[in-house]
Amino acid sequence: MELREMSDDACIAFLASHTFGHLASMGEQYPYVVPVHYAYDSRKVFLFSMPGQKVDQLRIIPFACLQVEEMEKDKMWKSVLVQGRFDELPDIPARRNERLHAWSLLEKRPFWWEPGSFELSAGEDGDSGSPIFFSLSIDVISGRQVEHRA
Amino acid sequence: MELREMSDDACIAFLASHTFGHLASMGEQYPYVVPVHYAYDSRKVFLFSMPGQKVDQLRIIPFACLQVEEMEKDKMWKSVLVQGRFDELPDIPARRNERLHAWSLLEKRPFWWEPGSFELSAGEDGDSGSPIFFSLSIDVISGRQVEHRA
Repeated sequence: MELREMSDDACIAFLASHTFGHLASMGEQYPYVVPVHYAYDSRKVFLFSMPGQKVDQLRIIPFACLQVEEMEKDKMWKSVLVQGRFDELPDIPARRNERLHAWSLLEKRPFWWEPGSFELSAGEDGDSGSPIFFSLSIDVISGRQVEHRA
Repeated sequence: MELREMSDDACIAFLASHTFGHLASMGEQYPYVVPVHYAYDSRKVFLFSMPGQKVDQLRIIPFACLQVEEMEKDKMWKSVLVQGRFDELPDIPARRNERLHAWSLLEKRPFWWEPGSFELSAGEDGDSGSPIFFSLSIDVISGRQVEHRA
């Protein structure tokens, strides 16, 4: 059994071939982490959320961390970590194309019902119906894996 | 399908009946998140790690977030979130009993090889062999679940 670092290319390939991970943000006192679905494209990660704590925090401190893992048989695993900057894609003409692109990437997967896709606070105000699209730049990426020694 | 908040008791019961989650901490610029195994006991969460980025960060900003989820069949899920304070259990006489207690809780599970249990930096200095035990207070706990509407 051997623990080793993954190359940048291997990390990106891993990220691109998965869609589920955990996204951490920073609140006033504590960090926050939720399961999320994402889509990778052109060295960015695209996500969406209903209004709530995650997006509120990211609007104040726009730095996030996405971690994606895969557990394989025989205790093998891979884990990739991305740290980057939150960039909201608001519904305004100047960003319409990016927003539509994010939507086209994300709509392929029927996961609106899943954890992190929506927030309990949705529905409490009148504006609960609008998902928030955002991307994450890949400022730092690293990965590690455990494998059998040859 | 209905999204609802879980009671505090339900959150604690859920936390106590699971052992795997994701732990977020806060770095200088970005948050950080890794998969972890933990043990729950008496309104505390116990964890261990080999030396590395996670513990380095928690020693500077001692606030963490543990999120635990369970995906069930038919798109049902539960997710519980704990925010609390990092408390290292060093190998000193004054904290020996707590450390032994943490060890007794954690040693039941053979997960030393798993992500988050050790760090790549281990082995680069001469002091790689000492796991760090720590607990997390449960300052804030919340949970949500999706279930079929009766």
